[in-house]
Amino acid sequence: MAGKVHLIGAGPGAADLITVRGMRLLQAADAVLFDALVQPEMLQYCPQAVLIPVGKRCDKASTAQRFINKMLVDAAHKYARVVRLKGGDPMLFGRAQEELAALDEAGIEYEIVPGVTAALAAAADSAISLTRRGFARNVLFATARVGEGEQTSDWLKPVLAADTTVLYMGVKQSAAIAAALLAGGMPPDTPLLIVENASLPGCREFPLTLRELPQAATFQLDGPAILLIGEVYRAKLALADEVRKAG
Amino acid sequence: MAGKVHLIGAGPGAADLITVRGMRLLQAADAVLFDALVQPEMLQYCPQAVLIPVGKRCDKASTAQRFINKMLVDAAHKYARVVRLKGGDPMLFGRAQEELAALDEAGIEYEIVPGVTAALAAAADSAISLTRRGFARNVLFATARVGEGEQTSDWLKPVLAADTTVLYMGVKQSAAIAAALLAGGMPPDTPLLIVENASLPGCREFPLTLRELPQAATFQLDGPAILLIGEVYRAKLALADEVRKAG
Repeated sequence: MAGKVHLIGAGPGAADLITVRGMRLLQAADAVLFDALVQPEMLQYCPQAVLIPVGKRCDKASTAQRFINKMLVDAAHKYARVVRLKGGDPMLFGRAQEELAALDEAGIEYEIVPGVTAALAAAADSAISLTRRGFARNVLFATARVGEGEQTSDWLKPVLAADTTVLYMGVKQSAAIAAALLAGGMPPDTPLLIVENASLPGCREFPLTLRELPQAATFQLDGPAILLIGEVYRAKLALADEVRKAG
Repeated sequence: MAGKVHLIGAGPGAADLITVRGMRLLQAADAVLFDALVQPEMLQYCPQAVLIPVGKRCDKASTAQRFINKMLVDAAHKYARVVRLKGGDPMLFGRAQEELAALDEAGIEYEIVPGVTAALAAAADSAISLTRRGFARNVLFATARVGEGEQTSDWLKPVLAADTTVLYMGVKQSAAIAAALLAGGMPPDTPLLIVENASLPGCREFPLTLRELPQAATFQLDGPAILLIGEVYRAKLALADEVRKAG
């Protein structure tokens, strides 16, 4: 008889930003398969468990999704309580559906535990609400697709229509993203905020305008970073200008 | 000297879906101001604290925002460790900015702790990822504004452009929402999912098409409900059809 799998969102990074349920399930787990985005501190909740790293970070060594699916099914055949720990929330840009399909096919029981997604941690760190009564009534979570062979128009349209946008990943392609947004008609003085390492000690934020976005290449972003776009960040921009002038 | 305020996301409802940090801060709080959306079980983390209910639910008795701001500032002058506990995540449809502005103005220190927003809990409950490689590459969180005197066009555009949309609140206006989406050109067979009481024992889900959305008025939704829209819900719809035929 196979074990049960809990697919758990680890949250944005800080070990205490996982949910209470997620922590308790980690404490009771026999085996934990974890992403490269999961911080080592998070694994201190489960010293008793067999730890199975399953790569996955955009530009670093990654384990093919099919292989992850297989490892997950194998673990459920070997252990009673398996945790699949994914950075952020598992149901948002997590390719969870492919893992769930593999578990369904193998007849393995699972449960999903949501997590705090990076955008919400960035909003908390920056103290800027993603929505604002009157002028920011919706927020889009998206990824920019500006690589070779990608048609840019299909990702642009919802970004241009939304009041606030959070772009996950892709900050390293900032010049191409800026070019696409400008070509799409977004005003050059649109306020942006880049947040690196949301919720972690090395958290940094960079307020800038769309016009200045290509400069992000010089920010030496090493940790996971997201790009926030919208009028709600204008106050942050004004503050940064003041600091710059005072400095 | 004033105390410090922690603005904490309570998460979608279940007491163990608050973050570990949120729970620990509740356990140490002197006073807790909480929303109507916060479940009573959540307050078991803070039996030592003075509990201050501050209404707020769309159609129930609510405390005016300005009064909440004042109560928050007053509490910080009276207690060292104040928690402002908000349903879901504080920085998404939470009017947090108005409370933060009041704290700023009063010179009171604060920190924000993010939470799991209802959309992510609904995704976990339904086991349907909000995004899917290839055909659901972005997700919009929005509110529908179909009340009298509202211009519908400004909320519609991003909804029509996004691959997946989560509409917070407003399910009770399902007929007006359906009419607006159909008039905007959304196909009548677009798959939808209504999730009521995400993460709670009374959780119910209703798969249906846009054409059928006006029927939601008969679902007798008592708890908080959100409306999810997009092709990712088509599989759920097919499953519901099978169950209906078998029944």
